[in-house]
Amino acid sequence: MATRNVSPPSGRAEHRWRAVAFPGTLTKPMSIDAIESALKPYLKMKQDLLERSWNDKIVDTLAIRLRYRLGSQATRACTARGGDIHIHISCVDYGANCYQQQESHIKSHTSAAKVSSMQKIISQFRYVFLMSALLMAVTLSGSTRVYAQKVVVAHRGASGYLPEHTLEAKAMAYAMGADYLEQDVVMTKDDQLLVLHDITLERTTDVASRFANRARSDGHYYAIDFTLAELRQLRVNEGVREAVNTRSAVYPERFPVDASSFQLNTLEEEIEFIQGMNKSTGRDVGIYPEIKSPEFHRAEGKDLSTAVISVLKRYGYMTKQHKVFVQTFSYEELKILHEEVLPAAGVSLNLVQLIAGEATYDWMLDAQGMKELARYADGLGPEKAMIIDRDSTPDDIIISDLVELAHANGMQVHPYTFRADEGQVPHFAENFEELLDLYYFDANVDGVFTDFPDKAVNFLRSKARTTR
Amino acid sequence: MATRNVSPPSGRAEHRWRAVAFPGTLTKPMSIDAIESALKPYLKMKQDLLERSWNDKIVDTLAIRLRYRLGSQATRACTARGGDIHIHISCVDYGANCYQQQESHIKSHTSAAKVSSMQKIISQFRYVFLMSALLMAVTLSGSTRVYAQKVVVAHRGASGYLPEHTLEAKAMAYAMGADYLEQDVVMTKDDQLLVLHDITLERTTDVASRFANRARSDGHYYAIDFTLAELRQLRVNEGVREAVNTRSAVYPERFPVDASSFQLNTLEEEIEFIQGMNKSTGRDVGIYPEIKSPEFHRAEGKDLSTAVISVLKRYGYMTKQHKVFVQTFSYEELKILHEEVLPAAGVSLNLVQLIAGEATYDWMLDAQGMKELARYADGLGPEKAMIIDRDSTPDDIIISDLVELAHANGMQVHPYTFRADEGQVPHFAENFEELLDLYYFDANVDGVFTDFPDKAVNFLRSKARTTR
Repeated sequence: MATRNVSPPSGRAEHRWRAVAFPGTLTKPMSIDAIESALKPYLKMKQDLLERSWNDKIVDTLAIRLRYRLGSQATRACTARGGDIHIHISCVDYGANCYQQQESHIKSHTSAAKVSSMQKIISQFRYVFLMSALLMAVTLSGSTRVYAQKVVVAHRGASGYLPEHTLEAKAMAYAMGADYLEQDVVMTKDDQLLVLHDITLERTTDVASRFANRARSDGHYYAIDFTLAELRQLRVNEGVREAVNTRSAVYPERFPVDASSFQLNTLEEEIEFIQGMNKSTGRDVGIYPEIKSPEFHRAEGKDLSTAVISVLKRYGYMTKQHKVFVQTFSYEELKILHEEVLPAAGVSLNLVQLIAGEATYDWMLDAQGMKELARYADGLGPEKAMIIDRDSTPDDIIISDLVELAHANGMQVHPYTFRADEGQVPHFAENFEELLDLYYFDANVDGVFTDFPDKAVNFLRSKARTTR
Repeated sequence: MATRNVSPPSGRAEHRWRAVAFPGTLTKPMSIDAIESALKPYLKMKQDLLERSWNDKIVDTLAIRLRYRLGSQATRACTARGGDIHIHISCVDYGANCYQQQESHIKSHTSAAKVSSMQKIISQFRYVFLMSALLMAVTLSGSTRVYAQKVVVAHRGASGYLPEHTLEAKAMAYAMGADYLEQDVVMTKDDQLLVLHDITLERTTDVASRFANRARSDGHYYAIDFTLAELRQLRVNEGVREAVNTRSAVYPERFPVDASSFQLNTLEEEIEFIQGMNKSTGRDVGIYPEIKSPEFHRAEGKDLSTAVISVLKRYGYMTKQHKVFVQTFSYEELKILHEEVLPAAGVSLNLVQLIAGEATYDWMLDAQGMKELARYADGLGPEKAMIIDRDSTPDDIIISDLVELAHANGMQVHPYTFRADEGQVPHFAENFEELLDLYYFDANVDGVFTDFPDKAVNFLRSKARTTR
């Protein structure tokens, strides 16, 4: 059972709890007494099951399976301020409006003793909660509502362990249990779609030594100046510092810069790779392509969005039910995708607006901006400090209203980038797992972009286990 | 707790049990009464820990960690015939004689009631067993003896999910938690070491369409007839049926034959790849190179063994403590490795004799043969039907004395090949996990070669969990 009680620093009246919340049919505020009373039939139900020779083990096994199915969404932030309890429950309708997130708040004026008593009840009846949700899922024929899973997006693959955007890094992330694998997409001189994070090549390839005279006047080697056949000749390496001609690793503890042998690949090859693994494993891992620097591409005479959507359609990604998110930092491009490119292709895909902590994006962050954004976007990908303030301390975690506002407008939130390398975990978290805990469950994000998908997957799994 | 009680078919007097056996310092036969009495102090110890505010959770956590450390070797086959109980305990001395396996037998004349009572005791005190082993490991300063881990060898990578011997398949197997990744090694025309299972190329590459006129008179394309630069131009595919010019998959449910884009790689590239992941993950995954068809290579004027050992030495594999097994089907080559190649290189590596169910190998299978083999080999890699007979039924599992004889001669046993594809699980096992259970714990093998490393790793982990 994942509960935590942070003692309030002197002079503060805030407590913070985490608890398994009631995953039932709550749609309106409900008092503690009402919750207590609602629990009684479920307790009876468990008793019945046990008496009918269902032993504890079976009930537990069902509960575990259910946990995996529901994911960690069944575990919600439960906060109390003064005498009020707020339980945030998000749920997803997998019916007609897949990924349409809904949210309910339970607010109850009550005493601190009541809060503690509620936690105890929640703890005591955690199996019952899960069983009840299972039985409801089975019996509610008119409704297919289940709780959303928290997801793990492998940021450029398992890039903490293998050079980013290689198929090898994607295979590793796939095996580690990531839900989505990310592809940054740029276009080549001959209009091929290349999976590459930068629009330039020198950080992750040996382009400078192999095509020494092909830099632009700014000293950079642009992928768009090379044909795919030329790009195939490059060796891919673990990222080095941007200055050309150095081979000094950005993250020295990761894969050795020039070891082994890796190549660039196209978006098509990567989709075939992931779909092939989906066939051989029976899983359904999604893709998360980014339209990189669309304005740059348009200035070079290339319509990257149309090309990407065409490939996605060719590989069967056509509705919001398909496991794909298309992301971009450009609000202009997001609108073009939503209003022109997707309709022209006759598809409807989940779109994600990426957001950085820059003035350009400021207007998006209030209620009005979110509402406007939600006309085009199904999700937000904010830099993670926009959700939990960098100035937070272990005793004072400052959470912005970004997630709450996004959820209120039906958008999911997938912040970036979670890195476990030395020095990359903000000081307000004790370690990487604590950081994930704060984001997934205190700040209530729906997924994270991480270079270390194994750690996020294992964190969510252990969370599922400890809350059995 | 992994116990199973197979009711004896009428007319038979054999029972078979599995149980967590006593992982203590047993070195000689011990009676049930003596075991019962030996348990008392450990029970007391747990009580003490609990009283000193160690709660059950902490004890369990230690137990889990210990299980991972000891691996499943702490779980041993426990068989009873008539009134005798045999508990087989293998342990490994990680000191001077790494991987030198030792074995003890406990034999006790006793009644069926006693057997059942013993199982009950074992079940009841499973935490205590583990705790005791932990404390012993900590306190026995004069001895570094711990129990060997059962290992998982990824057969040509995670070849059940991705094309064999690609770096992608190795990345997947690595992430799935395999202990060793296998490399089959052949030599190119220009004396490079290529990772390839067959000495020919047509099953796993597009050689026939790319170099149509390069087949020998037998219709086969031999890797040894191509330079590395030529081999780099080939595309690797999921295996197709051997007849040239068909693209029909050997295993239709696996990765699609011509999807995505894969290449061949050298032994050096693969070692750098694995060592690089060992650096970035902090794990220590081993390699398992095979000297393929050494006689064929010698007839072509190439000394494959010397070349492989030279590469291994260059990459730091020099003693039996290093995580490498060098395997070959050729007994002659095994002797050459042991008596000439390894001494000439000044290294001492673990050697594995591969064995197939052919007349050539018959002499190895009795006590005298094993003793002779053990002069050169540290382990055996037999075809799996040589350990559990193909004619076994669920009620009558026929286990040969191969493992017992090998262990008695200080050799580990790693049978091949465990496949979960439809039709690949022998009829005497209910499913793939049951098959693994029979081999790992009934037949007591030390490791398996499998195309599905995730399933073997998960099996061993769940075994560790259920025997908590």
